[in-house]
Amino acid sequence: MDIPDIIISRLPRYLHILEYLSRQGIQTTSSQEMGVLLGLSSAQIRKDLSQFGEFGKQGTGYEIPFLIQQLRNILKVNQTWKIALVGAGDLGHAIARYQGFENRGFYIAAVFDKDPEKIGRSIGTLRIEDIKTLAPRIREEGIRIAMLTVPAAEAQAVTNDLVVAGIQAILNYAPVVLKVPTGVLVKDIDPINSLQHMTYYVGK
Amino acid sequence: MDIPDIIISRLPRYLHILEYLSRQGIQTTSSQEMGVLLGLSSAQIRKDLSQFGEFGKQGTGYEIPFLIQQLRNILKVNQTWKIALVGAGDLGHAIARYQGFENRGFYIAAVFDKDPEKIGRSIGTLRIEDIKTLAPRIREEGIRIAMLTVPAAEAQAVTNDLVVAGIQAILNYAPVVLKVPTGVLVKDIDPINSLQHMTYYVGK
Repeated sequence: MDIPDIIISRLPRYLHILEYLSRQGIQTTSSQEMGVLLGLSSAQIRKDLSQFGEFGKQGTGYEIPFLIQQLRNILKVNQTWKIALVGAGDLGHAIARYQGFENRGFYIAAVFDKDPEKIGRSIGTLRIEDIKTLAPRIREEGIRIAMLTVPAAEAQAVTNDLVVAGIQAILNYAPVVLKVPTGVLVKDIDPINSLQHMTYYVGK
Repeated sequence: MDIPDIIISRLPRYLHILEYLSRQGIQTTSSQEMGVLLGLSSAQIRKDLSQFGEFGKQGTGYEIPFLIQQLRNILKVNQTWKIALVGAGDLGHAIARYQGFENRGFYIAAVFDKDPEKIGRSIGTLRIEDIKTLAPRIREEGIRIAMLTVPAAEAQAVTNDLVVAGIQAILNYAPVVLKVPTGVLVKDIDPINSLQHMTYYVGK
């Protein structure tokens, strides 16, 4: 079953909104309600979800706890993934302290930096580790996912090390285009992309 | 001319990659080269750009400086937009110090926080202002865009104030679904969405 990536890219948003409704004690929803909350058409949502099975019933809509479980299975976040965070600057600190990971399938298992002033210091319960130990520590912990918050000039070199260490997915905050071999995934978090998308619609 | 939003959403990525190639001194590119760098098909890129005019030539491809200028015009980042940053925690500090805004159409014009310990302190050349002055300062500066890095529990109340003050676009880092009136845009920066998108493909 080869589902188009554009559909996969929307599933986390569906899961997020369902978890939000669930936290408010709501048990069922509809593609209409989800559409309003997400700014998507209900037809789009129904079509996307129908790729994976019959999750809703005509007239009664979707049972939220069931659909959450299905989406977690599909996205493989019915387990908890370890993350290696590389770069313990302001942004690295913000991510290490971010409460939003909880219950969404991830936790920061290790933080690395090259600055001797930072190595050994704590961020919450994490201790900042020497970037020289990156590869052995990632292998030891069996980590597959990394978040990259190093300066732009260092990002490619760190990425090369991450790939050699067995990292398969990188969430990149550095404003550079990373080169990785086939089979390694990179997604960029670029606030400017989102801002530029909005300015298209904003009046002066 | 009503272009589908999914196409608009890809234009900032095209612009970003063109600026990246331009910084390397490259003058022309092709939809094939852009596709490889972006992980999109060349047909998709050609089709998207053709919505706005004839930017490329068969055989010679796209002239980068010209296409950059066209995309900046379309996305309205041929001007520099002021941004109000609300929340001067770790993430707010990281954003205020972020070098990536430069030359991409934005700068942080004001930073706000409610913490008396933070108000009056500096982040680079910016002074953290009292959130109580949010509305008058936004009006005074003519700011249309805000970035929101306050805790989740405070995000909706701050959003309401931003809307009243005339903000038309909000880039939201808080892990909540913001309610805004029609005509106000919100985009969420949610690292978990991006991580969950990748775990679909990652092997254990």
